Amino acid sequence: MTTDAFHVYDTTLRDGAQREGISYSVQDKLAVARLLDDLGVQFIEGGWPGAMPKDTEFFARARTELDLKSALLVAFGATRKAGVKVEDDAQVAALLDSEAPVITIVAKSDVRHVAEALRTTNEENVAMVRDTVAYLVSKGRRVFVDYEHFFDGYRNDPDYGVALITAATEAGASVNVLCDTNGGCLPSRITAVVTDVLARTGARLGIHCQDDTACAVANSIAAVEAGATHVQCTANGYGERTGNADLFAVIGNLEMKLDMRVLPEGRLPEMVRVSHAIAEIANLPANTHQAYVGVSAFAHKAGLHASALKVNSDLYNHMDPALVGNDMRVLVTEMAGRASVELKGRELGIDLSDDPDVLTRVVERVKDLEAGGWTFEAADASFELLLRDEMTGGRRRHFTVESWRTIVEQRADGTVASEATVKVHANGERIVATGEGNGPVNALDNALRTALTSAFPELAALELVDYKVRILDGSAGTDAVTRVLVGTTDGAHDWTTVGVHENVIAASWLALEDAVAYGLLKAGRETGEQA
Amino acid sequence: MTTDAFHVYDTTLRDGAQREGISYSVQDKLAVARLLDDLGVQFIEGGWPGAMPKDTEFFARARTELDLKSALLVAFGATRKAGVKVEDDAQVAALLDSEAPVITIVAKSDVRHVAEALRTTNEENVAMVRDTVAYLVSKGRRVFVDYEHFFDGYRNDPDYGVALITAATEAGASVNVLCDTNGGCLPSRITAVVTDVLARTGARLGIHCQDDTACAVANSIAAVEAGATHVQCTANGYGERTGNADLFAVIGNLEMKLDMRVLPEGRLPEMVRVSHAIAEIANLPANTHQAYVGVSAFAHKAGLHASALKVNSDLYNHMDPALVGNDMRVLVTEMAGRASVELKGRELGIDLSDDPDVLTRVVERVKDLEAGGWTFEAADASFELLLRDEMTGGRRRHFTVESWRTIVEQRADGTVASEATVKVHANGERIVATGEGNGPVNALDNALRTALTSAFPELAALELVDYKVRILDGSAGTDAVTRVLVGTTDGAHDWTTVGVHENVIAASWLALEDAVAYGLLKAGRETGEQA
Repeated sequence: MTTDAFHVYDTTLRDGAQREGISYSVQDKLAVARLLDDLGVQFIEGGWPGAMPKDTEFFARARTELDLKSALLVAFGATRKAGVKVEDDAQVAALLDSEAPVITIVAKSDVRHVAEALRTTNEENVAMVRDTVAYLVSKGRRVFVDYEHFFDGYRNDPDYGVALITAATEAGASVNVLCDTNGGCLPSRITAVVTDVLARTGARLGIHCQDDTACAVANSIAAVEAGATHVQCTANGYGERTGNADLFAVIGNLEMKLDMRVLPEGRLPEMVRVSHAIAEIANLPANTHQAYVGVSAFAHKAGLHASALKVNSDLYNHMDPALVGNDMRVLVTEMAGRASVELKGRELGIDLSDDPDVLTRVVERVKDLEAGGWTFEAADASFELLLRDEMTGGRRRHFTVESWRTIVEQRADGTVASEATVKVHANGERIVATGEGNGPVNALDNALRTALTSAFPELAALELVDYKVRILDGSAGTDAVTRVLVGTTDGAHDWTTVGVHENVIAASWLALEDAVAYGLLKAGRETGEQA
Repeated sequence: MTTDAFHVYDTTLRDGAQREGISYSVQDKLAVARLLDDLGVQFIEGGWPGAMPKDTEFFARARTELDLKSALLVAFGATRKAGVKVEDDAQVAALLDSEAPVITIVAKSDVRHVAEALRTTNEENVAMVRDTVAYLVSKGRRVFVDYEHFFDGYRNDPDYGVALITAATEAGASVNVLCDTNGGCLPSRITAVVTDVLARTGARLGIHCQDDTACAVANSIAAVEAGATHVQCTANGYGERTGNADLFAVIGNLEMKLDMRVLPEGRLPEMVRVSHAIAEIANLPANTHQAYVGVSAFAHKAGLHASALKVNSDLYNHMDPALVGNDMRVLVTEMAGRASVELKGRELGIDLSDDPDVLTRVVERVKDLEAGGWTFEAADASFELLLRDEMTGGRRRHFTVESWRTIVEQRADGTVASEATVKVHANGERIVATGEGNGPVNALDNALRTALTSAFPELAALELVDYKVRILDGSAGTDAVTRVLVGTTDGAHDWTTVGVHENVIAASWLALEDAVAYGLLKAGRETGEQA
């Protein structure tokens, strides 16, 4: 069990969203929050309600759509404005309206920022922090304070940072988070400042690091070693500029190197899955060389120590990769070890431990497919179909496809139209159907479900809800393949399928076919009922 | 001027080449060496002559083809074998044959490795180091020693590491490099061990770190702060598993944060160019979020900071990006204000400060478009076209589009085919052209450029190099839209354009149209020359 004595605080959804190229939908944010809760972080900063409409909506939907097992949701916001009473401040009111049990407010702590960016006095800024903390605490919220640019501020005027922390603590703030906002610190400076602030205030301290010196993880660890008991991180280090401290590296170091138990029992092996799934949602390629969770993190080029590796891999790995859900790789192949396939099977309710042959076949097929650009990290439904195919000894579907075609055109009057034709066989019949849609994939989906609905009426309820496309190895354009992830819902459940092909539409079709096949499986149609 | 008192030692060509996916030709290695010499590192480890035929050839060709300004070439190799006289060891002879003025030998320093991997006695291993160093020194070479797995070894038997360093130093080794070979250390451990070894031996120490805890850069810096005077790094942190300490981050930190002058005067601004050129040679995408040298390293998204950024960018950057050859970028995003648009314009060489009306129109259009799902933070080319349209008071292009159509089909034999037809007007002519491709977008791109190439031959050089698709969910009753980003190159420059539409193909088309329009702009075609 984790306790309140140490906090793993995630800000993927707020500070991490500052990374160039990231633009989460509310649906995405809910999915990321669920993954972080699976991992077992204690706090999930969801966004800035009141400032960002999307974040206001996130907190509203979270109340009914999120059922967090262990994490608490945190709303982030500013202190009251200068010269405004805290109870009249609309932005502060929006924080309360979010109904988040924990609120983190950000405060300026560098006197230059107070003067030049905030344009108020040092005294008013202290009052803004004190008033806002006291008000939010009086409303029953737990309050943390992020001190922006704390380390630069400490160079300019160390007494000012201490005065802020003292005021906030007296007003009821439970953690004071020192932020290296511009990321310019080295670990030695973090150690010195955290040690000094702790000695001068006795307050509970947290740390928030950016990676501008490539030391964000080391800086976070240095702060913990100096007495900080709250670390703010983002999944995969996403964040503005060079990013934030990577959640997975920080947790890995705390657990494996400092022997701290910061996640609930048994969650550490979730790291790889959660890291990769969040990358998929962010629509960014997973960093193959990422510490602890990268697919290359324990990969050894076959060479001088390959044989020694076999004898005693402990000599060449800094830890057992399985502890974080990773795997050692010796050959230059893609991932997927037996352990992770077995684990994933178990997750899907399929026990493979008694069936080593099926396990071997699945591992081989996953390896082959991953070498060709497929990924099953975020496509559980396709993986389950693959698993069931291998268990029953072949591809079994309720329908077979003869051919398909889609046309998209922009006419001279500017209107855009998409239509599709599919030819399929089901229940011994050949069916030709057409569909229209707001795009070629939607048209194909409509045509396919139209073709199959008389045989399988339950397909009428299916809806395509997400669609992601990534070009892999797209450097020369020629050998690139396209990977498509399709999200589907039947109203009650969501599932994701994957397709890979050099042609984006063909890749989409493969994912659609799996989406429909999985829908039939979930509706209770046995794959044995082959068309 | 740099002196011998501190060494920046690069091992991109030897240890860095262990990174999965890297395979340099000899030509590549020569090109990387020239770049590292441009940057001003003192030592370039070229490879392992005798063990790797490519490396033997590299040293042979280097003698005539490399004319290094300041760097010295280093040959890397093992000590003599156990039970072999050093003058009879073929691998040691190959090191001398390389004619490299400096030789780094690698030694086991963990008693477990001596026993289990080397299978010899601790005493013989010390003798192997002593004999090899003395022999190479007697042949006029400067000798460094890399102690493999030093930090693990130090835990198992600290006296053994000290004994090795003492023996090597007595034999004439000039630097003793402590290697965190499996990368498991945190900075606090590096500090403790380096401090202790320095106190016990008084020998000159170096450091070589791997990034398995995401602390390689911090560990290298911690070693320097503890007294090491030689750092081994690789360009962009390339290396086995999670990689090595990134040369550019280490140099940036030493120069900018510890105020050490480790490069020759005036070379620091070469960092960005050298980093990106080496990525190009390694055939890997440059890491956009890399400390100091990434294109996003000084990119700011937060709209609320933009006005303060304009006043005093020093408040938000940890240093002046120009010092390392980088540049601040302001991302035009949700919450775009006048200040960020003005800053962005300035970045593109367009001064909007005198033209408040244009600025107002651009901000309004960006806000409208962003509300509809457009984003310009990654699509500078589309943003520049928008800016120029608003400056000239309307959309001006070299061509107009009448209509287009694309067909994708999977035939009954399983083959997939894509074709497209476009009808455009340019130079007063109506042109109908068709194209095929490995997907609908590629087919449309081919058809469009086929149609326009007779009027604008420069379009033949354009190539679509990246393609990203994102479905954005419609909020409250509106339909979902699709956002497409297209990356294009003309061989010399890359640019990104964006298109948004409910239909993925129509969105792709909009991005393609912008890509071609921007290509014509860059080729010097005035937008005034409207078709």
